[in-house]
Amino acid sequence: MTRPDTPAQTSPAANQQWGGRFAAGPAEIMGRINASIGFDQRLWRQDIAGSKAHAAMLGTQGIIEPADVSAITAGLDAIAAEIEAGRFSFDEALEDIHMNVEARLSAAIGDAGRRLHTARSRNDQVATDFRLWVRDAIDALDAQVVGLMVALATRAAEYAATPMPGFTHLQTAQPVTFGHHLLAYVEMLSRDRGRLRDARARLNELPLGSAALAGTSFPIDRHAVAAALGFDRPTANSLDAVSDRDFALEYLSALSILAVHLSRLAEEIVIWCSQPYHFIRLSDAYTTGSSIMPQKRNPDAAELARAKSGRITGALVGLLMVIKGLPLAYAKDMQEDKQPVFDATDAAGLALAAMEGMVRDLVADAAAMRAASGSGYATATDLADWLVRVLKLPFRDAHHVTGQIVALAERQGVDLAGLELAAMQSVEPRITAAVFDVLTVEASVASRTSYGGTAPGNVAAQAAGWLQRLEISR
Amino acid sequence: MTRPDTPAQTSPAANQQWGGRFAAGPAEIMGRINASIGFDQRLWRQDIAGSKAHAAMLGTQGIIEPADVSAITAGLDAIAAEIEAGRFSFDEALEDIHMNVEARLSAAIGDAGRRLHTARSRNDQVATDFRLWVRDAIDALDAQVVGLMVALATRAAEYAATPMPGFTHLQTAQPVTFGHHLLAYVEMLSRDRGRLRDARARLNELPLGSAALAGTSFPIDRHAVAAALGFDRPTANSLDAVSDRDFALEYLSALSILAVHLSRLAEEIVIWCSQPYHFIRLSDAYTTGSSIMPQKRNPDAAELARAKSGRITGALVGLLMVIKGLPLAYAKDMQEDKQPVFDATDAAGLALAAMEGMVRDLVADAAAMRAASGSGYATATDLADWLVRVLKLPFRDAHHVTGQIVALAERQGVDLAGLELAAMQSVEPRITAAVFDVLTVEASVASRTSYGGTAPGNVAAQAAGWLQRLEISR
Amino acid sequence: MTRPDTPAQTSPAANQQWGGRFAAGPAEIMGRINASIGFDQRLWRQDIAGSKAHAAMLGTQGIIEPADVSAITAGLDAIAAEIEAGRFSFDEALEDIHMNVEARLSAAIGDAGRRLHTARSRNDQVATDFRLWVRDAIDALDAQVVGLMVALATRAAEYAATPMPGFTHLQTAQPVTFGHHLLAYVEMLSRDRGRLRDARARLNELPLGSAALAGTSFPIDRHAVAAALGFDRPTANSLDAVSDRDFALEYLSALSILAVHLSRLAEEIVIWCSQPYHFIRLSDAYTTGSSIMPQKRNPDAAELARAKSGRITGALVGLLMVIKGLPLAYAKDMQEDKQPVFDATDAAGLALAAMEGMVRDLVADAAAMRAASGSGYATATDLADWLVRVLKLPFRDAHHVTGQIVALAERQGVDLAGLELAAMQSVEPRITAAVFDVLTVEASVASRTSYGGTAPGNVAAQAAGWLQRLEISR
Amino acid sequence: MTRPDTPAQTSPAANQQWGGRFAAGPAEIMGRINASIGFDQRLWRQDIAGSKAHAAMLGTQGIIEPADVSAITAGLDAIAAEIEAGRFSFDEALEDIHMNVEARLSAAIGDAGRRLHTARSRNDQVATDFRLWVRDAIDALDAQVVGLMVALATRAAEYAATPMPGFTHLQTAQPVTFGHHLLAYVEMLSRDRGRLRDARARLNELPLGSAALAGTSFPIDRHAVAAALGFDRPTANSLDAVSDRDFALEYLSALSILAVHLSRLAEEIVIWCSQPYHFIRLSDAYTTGSSIMPQKRNPDAAELARAKSGRITGALVGLLMVIKGLPLAYAKDMQEDKQPVFDATDAAGLALAAMEGMVRDLVADAAAMRAASGSGYATATDLADWLVRVLKLPFRDAHHVTGQIVALAERQGVDLAGLELAAMQSVEPRITAAVFDVLTVEASVASRTSYGGTAPGNVAAQAAGWLQRLEISR
Repeated sequence: MTRPDTPAQTSPAANQQWGGRFAAGPAEIMGRINASIGFDQRLWRQDIAGSKAHAAMLGTQGIIEPADVSAITAGLDAIAAEIEAGRFSFDEALEDIHMNVEARLSAAIGDAGRRLHTARSRNDQVATDFRLWVRDAIDALDAQVVGLMVALATRAAEYAATPMPGFTHLQTAQPVTFGHHLLAYVEMLSRDRGRLRDARARLNELPLGSAALAGTSFPIDRHAVAAALGFDRPTANSLDAVSDRDFALEYLSALSILAVHLSRLAEEIVIWCSQPYHFIRLSDAYTTGSSIMPQKRNPDAAELARAKSGRITGALVGLLMVIKGLPLAYAKDMQEDKQPVFDATDAAGLALAAMEGMVRDLVADAAAMRAASGSGYATATDLADWLVRVLKLPFRDAHHVTGQIVALAERQGVDLAGLELAAMQSVEPRITAAVFDVLTVEASVASRTSYGGTAPGNVAAQAAGWLQRLEISR
Repeated sequence: MTRPDTPAQTSPAANQQWGGRFAAGPAEIMGRINASIGFDQRLWRQDIAGSKAHAAMLGTQGIIEPADVSAITAGLDAIAAEIEAGRFSFDEALEDIHMNVEARLSAAIGDAGRRLHTARSRNDQVATDFRLWVRDAIDALDAQVVGLMVALATRAAEYAATPMPGFTHLQTAQPVTFGHHLLAYVEMLSRDRGRLRDARARLNELPLGSAALAGTSFPIDRHAVAAALGFDRPTANSLDAVSDRDFALEYLSALSILAVHLSRLAEEIVIWCSQPYHFIRLSDAYTTGSSIMPQKRNPDAAELARAKSGRITGALVGLLMVIKGLPLAYAKDMQEDKQPVFDATDAAGLALAAMEGMVRDLVADAAAMRAASGSGYATATDLADWLVRVLKLPFRDAHHVTGQIVALAERQGVDLAGLELAAMQSVEPRITAAVFDVLTVEASVASRTSYGGTAPGNVAAQAAGWLQRLEISR
Repeated sequence: MTRPDTPAQTSPAANQQWGGRFAAGPAEIMGRINASIGFDQRLWRQDIAGSKAHAAMLGTQGIIEPADVSAITAGLDAIAAEIEAGRFSFDEALEDIHMNVEARLSAAIGDAGRRLHTARSRNDQVATDFRLWVRDAIDALDAQVVGLMVALATRAAEYAATPMPGFTHLQTAQPVTFGHHLLAYVEMLSRDRGRLRDARARLNELPLGSAALAGTSFPIDRHAVAAALGFDRPTANSLDAVSDRDFALEYLSALSILAVHLSRLAEEIVIWCSQPYHFIRLSDAYTTGSSIMPQKRNPDAAELARAKSGRITGALVGLLMVIKGLPLAYAKDMQEDKQPVFDATDAAGLALAAMEGMVRDLVADAAAMRAASGSGYATATDLADWLVRVLKLPFRDAHHVTGQIVALAERQGVDLAGLELAAMQSVEPRITAAVFDVLTVEASVASRTSYGGTAPGNVAAQAAGWLQRLEISR
Repeated sequence: MTRPDTPAQTSPAANQQWGGRFAAGPAEIMGRINASIGFDQRLWRQDIAGSKAHAAMLGTQGIIEPADVSAITAGLDAIAAEIEAGRFSFDEALEDIHMNVEARLSAAIGDAGRRLHTARSRNDQVATDFRLWVRDAIDALDAQVVGLMVALATRAAEYAATPMPGFTHLQTAQPVTFGHHLLAYVEMLSRDRGRLRDARARLNELPLGSAALAGTSFPIDRHAVAAALGFDRPTANSLDAVSDRDFALEYLSALSILAVHLSRLAEEIVIWCSQPYHFIRLSDAYTTGSSIMPQKRNPDAAELARAKSGRITGALVGLLMVIKGLPLAYAKDMQEDKQPVFDATDAAGLALAAMEGMVRDLVADAAAMRAASGSGYATATDLADWLVRVLKLPFRDAHHVTGQIVALAERQGVDLAGLELAAMQSVEPRITAAVFDVLTVEASVASRTSYGGTAPGNVAAQAAGWLQRLEISR
């Protein structure tokens, strides 16, 4: 049996399992499965902020002495500085970030440190830390989403009147403008922001003070701690507060939908870059080349952004399954909440950054887009609409007449604008030369002035409106 | 090769696949994979409502004649009556609900019917119908969630002071009250309502008028149609409007989290009914019996409610995967959006109904709960807190002293309240007889008066507050 | 609140939930959530076959009388005929297929019918029925997979020497043949068959005789029943036998991977049909047209086949989540096993049938493929390999030289075969005119004669080998 | 905007995203999303083994010189020693393990190193490395599964005759033995081994020599490389070979089902440890205590093992979604294959190790189990079977009589063995005193001698058989 991993190159937790059964004592296996410090150290800022707010409240309420509060605050600040500087040594035997910080604090300041845990437990502490982390992550990702929206709207303004084929079933259907297409993603991302915002508002309640599960008999002031940490209010039920991971699930749901949006744009970028399309060219910065084929621009960044949707959905499914069927209150299963959230956050952050870069730098091949948008009888609908509007045919009849005319054009090997009037009149005698006004790509897009339609004026106004609103929200 | 299905007992679409390869012509296979009328007929109310609003607007805008509007409206009302009465014959050859209704209308009223489809397409029509359906489903499920919350809060008020063991890791940890435990689920469900409400607000934009994908050149008034159908506004980008299924994904996400909540309560009900626990007894109505063991009460309804979380999550995952990587605008893949949504809606509705019934009818065995809550040194934390509060020990030291006292009690085979004062003083001499005031289950729960804590007064107030707020929202 | 469904047009179980809370009695809700006859009637053939084998064994073992066996057998055959003819009335009050059949049998033949259930229970009965159904489904799907493989290999033989661009990152990389590309899917499907075959072998153990969970005290002969029903052996542990749904999970896993394969081919078909590619043309039978754009061929069947991968994966995830954390032995959650399996089976069957039809009928545009395969310096690797082989350059150096030559060609706006020898020699003086022999698309594909490579001779031989082996396996 | 992470404490790739948009140049973001060396360094052993086999074959075939082969082999061995010793410096700029090793080799041995990549590409190289890694992981996990099976069978032999309640719906149903219950998991794990074995056999084909996607024109001998690396044969289609990740999907499927099995046992352990059950006691090594409640034994290891099923299923879903809809051949999306596989492997390894330890160390409370198995009229089925066997009642009638007798016992507050004969005869006069022989727990389990039944003799024989077979397979 070959060992697929070597101890030297992977983390201890990751590789020792292989031989664990034979060599490691039970305590060692337990340590490895139980300890979370390997990943929950990412909560350190939140853990220290929460402890400082808790200590201040304990002091205000007379549960600990003012001097203890001062010692705790200074001690925690010193620990923060150590961690920031990379000088803090995390100890797996202390299991998690909470015990690592508290042990260091007690070592540094003595009895005061041992008073910090009054009227709280790790159950409400970790729930608090994790909510704070997710809240921060939402804020950071929201800023990235805004960045991508600005990039898209900026490019949309630039390409507001640039025709491209609008596809259904990836078949040329009707001409649209490239700017209009890009703005569709701005709409999606705007809803993503809404979901993140709603998730943030819903999670913004303080679990701390719920203690292990039942509340506490100490005269704490949870409202004060909530205010100090920027929470809207304390949670209303202590059992729920330590058992709930809705906020992580809702956050992962929002990220999954966001990631699916990015996967759609990524897919389009991959197709648009493909030689037969050649609609856009990505910059060198967001492609990988080939030393053998210097002309090659592999859209690796788009492909990876597309793939992240799988990873993020996997994180969501995993956590839904972890929480499924868990009795109240805290269970250790819930420790499996953090890695999927961290991983999905990193994946979403990378995908957004890469996508923003690609969008900022891409160059459209307007000629290729224009050429493709004029093929495939893309203005047939315009002809049908003209028949309804001008000749007053019922829509279904106009639809039928148009079909006959397109078939005629196809037999002659010309496009609609290239068909002679007489030919059209052989199908429907009342057609006049005025019809040619609606058969070009440019006329087609210009005519779509309905609210939300692709007319360049609409698109330019929408893009400008977005840029204005987004600047305010930054 | 045995055929696992028989034609006679299953739907044609479901079973003919087996032999399809050999016997069926290609058109037949295509018909089976392509037609959606078998399931999208559930959209009929929404389809007719949308068409009526569209026709009225076309009339107002002068795009069709007033007489056409009247004919269309009357015709659609007649079709609605036919469907309602079960007299409408759906035709698979017409593929979907939209074509079934329109074909019937044209057959009934002639040219006016063929004018209805002016300035719209199936792409924006189905997006509109489906949003309306999901909106209605949210309203219906929200009412069911409220019903379950009322049931839980009603029982919580009744059991506000009834002690039960509070568990962590399914180990007895600290006493709580049964009412407090039930209210934890009211909190979860309240967040579920919030998610449904947010999803409803976000989806409440009208896609109709986006036409196939590019908007239309007809002078339509999308704002009027939006208002007529109860939408807050029309969608702002026609490509997005026909490509977007966010509303279905967000809805399924909200249902998945809701279902996980129900799975947790269901799991607890199953455990609580188990003979060694015997905390509750379900009514006959929500259990299945055994003719051989008449005393048996299998909690089938709870088990099925628990299982629905899998099904609903499966629906979410399936749709996320369907939408992943789809280029704009409409693709036929999106036809796979309806069945998971219908199925998840039915599953959630059944689980909610069953859960409400179980909660309304269950009877708690207060004696069994009280006995279990007094075992396992569940008031050890109360002792530690007393040491902090009265003797001013640092919390971590108090924790340590408590551990020694519990170990002593364990060796003597008594619980904490049964230990003699002298024995306690052998560990910590300053302990006084006043300590016994905090060591009973009743004292423990009564002391947890912190906001959100389990003190009966808190619980009663919370339950009353919920009932008041819920009555208003019904 | 609008009701999104109408009673008349949907199944009772599906729609009554909406008002259930208000109107329906608890027993009614319980009936709706509990009954499975609405879907498990698909097991009727398997149920009757299992009962006949069980009865015969009871007779042989002297547990029931020979006359009873005869009566039971005749009675079950009569029921089968009724169901086959569509004359059997399924009753929801009898919950499931097992009770429906047994009740009908007892009504028909009296006491003998009431003896059938000796030494079995519904727990082992449903496990047996469902294994039989999945076994049959595997056989049916395997035949469909073979059908698709034959279609692919047949077309691959036809296009064994037809060049097309081989893509990586959807960028033109090296020329391959269309036949080679199609055979890649034959390889995937062959592994799918392997997974189905392994799943079939693993599930082929008889649960019947495990009774409710503990086995039975009757002197049954499980080996005889196993043999009668085509099982390899009886299951070895009665608790496992009634609790296990591995076979459904493994089957759904195999279908999920199969469906992902189909989704890849479907994606390629969609792209190949897109106007800028125009590599293939689907037949009318597997596309939907547009009466307004008669030239249009929407690849609906491919899109739906692509989407089925989401649905099938959703079924797998749902069932994994249902089974997660279930204590032994039978729990009602396990009733949620059938619908995902039925649904995924139907979806896979439809996707396979549609895919086989598309592959059989598609027409390649060899000229468009040839043109695309010659662009993008697709033979740069051939040049590099020539430098290694003939000039003995280390591969990485040859790679570098090739890059310079391609850059030169790009600047001159010609392809590699169009570059003058002198120009190449300006980069590497030792290059001779012999190099031009490897720079054409035809030379490139012809040279790839390594095992598994794209050389037309290889491809033709592989296709022929597959067709020969597949004919035998049919 | 608070940054939730600090650079100092997390990996660069993980944290820099936050500010990436503002500060980092595009190349930096691209580097972060593109580089895989952070995780694919786990493939180093496989990468070096593959390169050595490739070089040896190139030498044998005369494609490179013998001296080059020697230099490459020695150079790779030296690199392996460096990595093993932790002295190798991985460089993110070189992207992945393949380039890191090759660059180091070329730096060390010059031209020979630059010849190594002849007739291969990263596409076939990574496919080969990853298959080798998964094959090794399967072997390691299989050994762990055997370890757990041995632990279970060993304990089953010990508890072969120890009665416990057999549950359905977590309701006491019929007595079984604890050994029988444990052996149910041996059956499940045996099927898991089968799935892993089948996956191993199916993946055991060599992709190397497929080159980028089309094969190669060099006269390579893929069969020789396959043999050297322990593969059964080379892959038969070069496009498939570089595009296929079936082996990862099938492996993750097998792990998902395995993990669900572990989750069921873990759930039972959690319930059995719960105070009201008290069926077993875990060792200190696999529980976490509480310094405040020294008697407490939180089954953390079981809870974490239970939760791993979510994580592993999440990995499977994620990868299915990544591969869905990918055109051939290689796409960068496929780089997302490794982390879920690594993560799921680690999770499964930890869960198996923890589970084996728990099973080895647990102590059953036979008295508590016996007491619980005697309650709830668990021998009612035995009474019914006696009525069938001795009085020849049809089973359904016997069932009915039994129900009346149990109801009588329930009214009298006694169990079945405690009911007087006269009372039984008041329901069915033909009952004799012989019936009491079947009404005890011991008699019940002893009577279940059908194949696979719970009779202690059966269980002991099964356990012994397993132990014998497992020792051979180790």
